[in-house]
Amino acid sequence: MRTWIVCLLFPALMGSLLAQSKNTEAESGPSASPSAPETRSAIEQVLRTQQEAWNRHDRDAFMAGYWNSKDLTFFSGAQRTSGWQGALDRYRKNYQNDGKEMGRLEFRDLQIESLGDNAAFVRGVWHLTMSDGKTPHGLFTLVFRKFPDGWKIVHDHTSAAE
Amino acid sequence: MRTWIVCLLFPALMGSLLAQSKNTEAESGPSASPSAPETRSAIEQVLRTQQEAWNRHDRDAFMAGYWNSKDLTFFSGAQRTSGWQGALDRYRKNYQNDGKEMGRLEFRDLQIESLGDNAAFVRGVWHLTMSDGKTPHGLFTLVFRKFPDGWKIVHDHTSAAE
Repeated sequence: MRTWIVCLLFPALMGSLLAQSKNTEAESGPSASPSAPETRSAIEQVLRTQQEAWNRHDRDAFMAGYWNSKDLTFFSGAQRTSGWQGALDRYRKNYQNDGKEMGRLEFRDLQIESLGDNAAFVRGVWHLTMSDGKTPHGLFTLVFRKFPDGWKIVHDHTSAAE
Repeated sequence: MRTWIVCLLFPALMGSLLAQSKNTEAESGPSASPSAPETRSAIEQVLRTQQEAWNRHDRDAFMAGYWNSKDLTFFSGAQRTSGWQGALDRYRKNYQNDGKEMGRLEFRDLQIESLGDNAAFVRGVWHLTMSDGKTPHGLFTLVFRKFPDGWKIVHDHTSAAE
């Protein structure tokens, strides 16, 4: 597995193109919520916060976007990571060892869709630029739930170009 | 791209291990719905119907599990397919041409989680057995919404082992 593939676990950080977020709620189906604009705004803020944290290599601030629970899940390729602690352990392994590069990530085609008052999902494209000029890229799906302390990612599924 | 990779677009068909579905709703967070058991049962039926359709190569019955809309999305690797018609075109291209093999698919670790009354998402493992003995495998995430004619997949994200 290429070294950068691990970056795919954390697509939520990529927020530079948040302004391109599509406002698709109006056509999203029978359960569109009247709070959809507020939902989108709140989730955009979570992603922007994560992006900024990633770019300054602030692990704790980055991880704050994820549900702090054993039931948090990451899917990347065929690999599952379960739990907030598991995600943190993976972050440490993949980004805080010698020779690891996080790269600069860019969000594209971000699409935030409300699923009622307390849930939403986000589709998007991630595009990574590494110091050697390589540009791994792929897609991600995030499921968000609203908690007393705000919107959190409860599931993150990322995939890369073959 | 390996020929079987296209199978990854359609994980919903894999239902042979539906009985393993985890009943995680009770611990799924603040927005658990009282209708969660009914939601899980209805979604299991959609997946079982799709599995049976796949195994008899019944394209129309298989596609009936998907939202018939231009807003249906498939993510597989770095490839996006938009719309029900796009999904159908892809099915035809990948499974109805000479030399294409659909393989036998198996569902594992299916996890259906309600997101309120009208939405849910499904996590699972797909495992494919081809006639040459190869066993490609990976993960999928499905987002479901409840429509007047039942629960439909509105977004399908699949990824494979590297």
